[in-house]
Amino acid sequence: MIEYQDASPEVREVYDDIMRTRKTETINNFWKAMAANPAVLKQTWENIKQVMAPGALDALTKELIYLAVSATNQCSYCMASHSASARATGMTEKMFGELMAVVGMANNTNALAAGFQVPIDDQFKAGL
Amino acid sequence: MIEYQDASPEVREVYDDIMRTRKTETINNFWKAMAANPAVLKQTWENIKQVMAPGALDALTKELIYLAVSATNQCSYCMASHSASARATGMTEKMFGELMAVVGMANNTNALAAGFQVPIDDQFKAGL
Amino acid sequence: MIEYQDASPEVREVYDDIMRTRKTETINNFWKAMAANPAVLKQTWENIKQVMAPGALDALTKELIYLAVSATNQCSYCMASHSASARATGMTEKMFGELMAVVGMANNTNALAAGFQVPIDDQFKAGL
Amino acid sequence: MIEYQDASPEVREVYDDIMRTRKTETINNFWKAMAANPAVLKQTWENIKQVMAPGALDALTKELIYLAVSATNQCSYCMASHSASARATGMTEKMFGELMAVVGMANNTNALAAGFQVPIDDQFKAGL
Amino acid sequence: MIEYQDASPEVREVYDDIMRTRKTETINNFWKAMAANPAVLKQTWENIKQVMAPGALDALTKELIYLAVSATNQCSYCMASHSASARATGMTEKMFGELMAVVGMANNTNALAAGFQVPIDDQFKAGL
Amino acid sequence: MIEYQDASPEVREVYDDIMRTRKTETINNFWKAMAANPAVLKQTWENIKQVMAPGALDALTKELIYLAVSATNQCSYCMASHSASARATGMTEKMFGELMAVVGMANNTNALAAGFQVPIDDQFKAGL
Repeated sequence: MIEYQDASPEVREVYDDIMRTRKTETINNFWKAMAANPAVLKQTWENIKQVMAPGALDALTKELIYLAVSATNQCSYCMASHSASARATGMTEKMFGELMAVVGMANNTNALAAGFQVPIDDQFKAGL
Repeated sequence: MIEYQDASPEVREVYDDIMRTRKTETINNFWKAMAANPAVLKQTWENIKQVMAPGALDALTKELIYLAVSATNQCSYCMASHSASARATGMTEKMFGELMAVVGMANNTNALAAGFQVPIDDQFKAGL
Repeated sequence: MIEYQDASPEVREVYDDIMRTRKTETINNFWKAMAANPAVLKQTWENIKQVMAPGALDALTKELIYLAVSATNQCSYCMASHSASARATGMTEKMFGELMAVVGMANNTNALAAGFQVPIDDQFKAGL
Repeated sequence: MIEYQDASPEVREVYDDIMRTRKTETINNFWKAMAANPAVLKQTWENIKQVMAPGALDALTKELIYLAVSATNQCSYCMASHSASARATGMTEKMFGELMAVVGMANNTNALAAGFQVPIDDQFKAGL
Repeated sequence: MIEYQDASPEVREVYDDIMRTRKTETINNFWKAMAANPAVLKQTWENIKQVMAPGALDALTKELIYLAVSATNQCSYCMASHSASARATGMTEKMFGELMAVVGMANNTNALAAGFQVPIDDQFKAGL
Repeated sequence: MIEYQDASPEVREVYDDIMRTRKTETINNFWKAMAANPAVLKQTWENIKQVMAPGALDALTKELIYLAVSATNQCSYCMASHSASARATGMTEKMFGELMAVVGMANNTNALAAGFQVPIDDQFKAGL
């Protein structure tokens, strides 16, 4: 993991933009772990910055979606860091509980749909 | 798959509740495929009805979360049926695009966090 | 996909052993699709033959476990072929329904455990 | 995580039912982590209680299926807690070894079926 | 799906760059399906173009890695399109067979490592 | 976990072959954790030895493929042990960065292909 003081100018530029954009003075381990690969670091950050910015979906909804994927994938780092950012963006305990209930249910019925080999209904095919 | 006319009273009761709750006159293949197992059918429906009802999160946000999990799990049936219900609940094409961008990004960075073996930051551990 | 009549002696030997072991006269597409790679075909078959043979767990329990993994992974081919072999081995419709209910529940609670970031209980750590 | 002494009456009722049903005096972290969301806690417990109860499949077979899904999903908490309950239900070391061999093999061949793009055999389609 | 003749100038620009970069005159369905969301289309293409370009790893190795992930995730579209591009880049049938054998084995032992709850060896921790 | 000095002759034989083949004097926890099940241990080792041996793909490419699957599956043990063996086989930091970029991108576009429900192009179907 590469700390700010040990970082190359190229990496520092990304670190600076992360801190400026997120209005924080710390760099998460995620970025430090990637910083030995400046190109991967830079591209990943640019993508996240663009994708997570509010648009047709607001910032909180995007954080909830990110958590839904991370719980599904068993990504413990992602749950730890993004449940913090989701709370900072306004996620209440009650929202988190409902989020998890939907995520659990979706993982449940995803397995059922595969297990029962459910064929796609004609009216949904029309939507393609 | 069990059609309404061939269904037992127990199964018909679930079918009736689905149509009443969802204000529709069709039963999706998902339910018909499960109906040979009335207990599984009934429990799954009761759970979905409770979990997907609006609460601290609105119905559309819950549909988006459901889609996020389903795309992550490669559940083609679930994408087909729930992208239809999400659109019926108000998901625009632009929302869908942003949803998919976040889902793609989350799957990307979930793999990176595992691949780079990123240790959880102390400030996120405190949150536990 | 390589049919029996077009197969090399090396591939035919595997095909013959499959038909002999499974007491059938057809070779599933799974094997035909792999047969352009005789080494992969042979090793995969030898492993499956050994692993699926009854031991401390009987043949039906092993088929149920196989289906549990396949539904979780959304493997449609695996569900189609192994739900047939599970039924041939004695799986009833009621067993299948209960299997799917456990699989759905496990996928649900797996996501919840990750989502709520549940730390392992001390008494379970002792078991390691 | 919410301990029994700090729990609301609603949560205590679930905790009491868990201890009564499982004939134990401890509440696992899984439940304590969810208890800030009493509705999720209650629904999850009710579902698990119903789904894991012996029926057409006995309690041990259900535990094995649960473990098969949990190993596939890389759920470390679920493996830790349910390998304990599976052993308490009668799973021997030899059974566990065979379970893992089938789970490993299923994950292997699931990937092969996808990788070789194996089309579903006509005789398995008929089963739909 | 949006065909070239129906595409906006913004989408056509991406289509043109895809055809120029890949030296082809067809646009895959993947891009057409995304084109209703020009921002997602453009960002995804820019990322893929950058990531898949030869560097420390050559183009074929990158295609093999892409296939390894896609088989693991059961992505049938991705296997179909990228096994074609991998073959065009020089993947032989024998390479494909060995790729699949490693992918199957990795999925197998990934599940075993989780199932047996293997603790990380001290010498590998030192590497962090 | 079973140490060498406590191992049965059957297990020692596998341990000896691992150390001989890998030119090392340590046995990883992965093998020790499995050693209570000598049949699983032996079969897993024999498979890995055969599959990871250089062939049409060299040893380093196979290690990269193994890492691609392990990051996708969130297998922390597998990432720890195999990123060590990949480095020992010649993987540079730059290669690792590019590997992770492709793995992240593949997980991203796998989810997009499922999410956008992309139908397989006719020219790729012909390849089947």
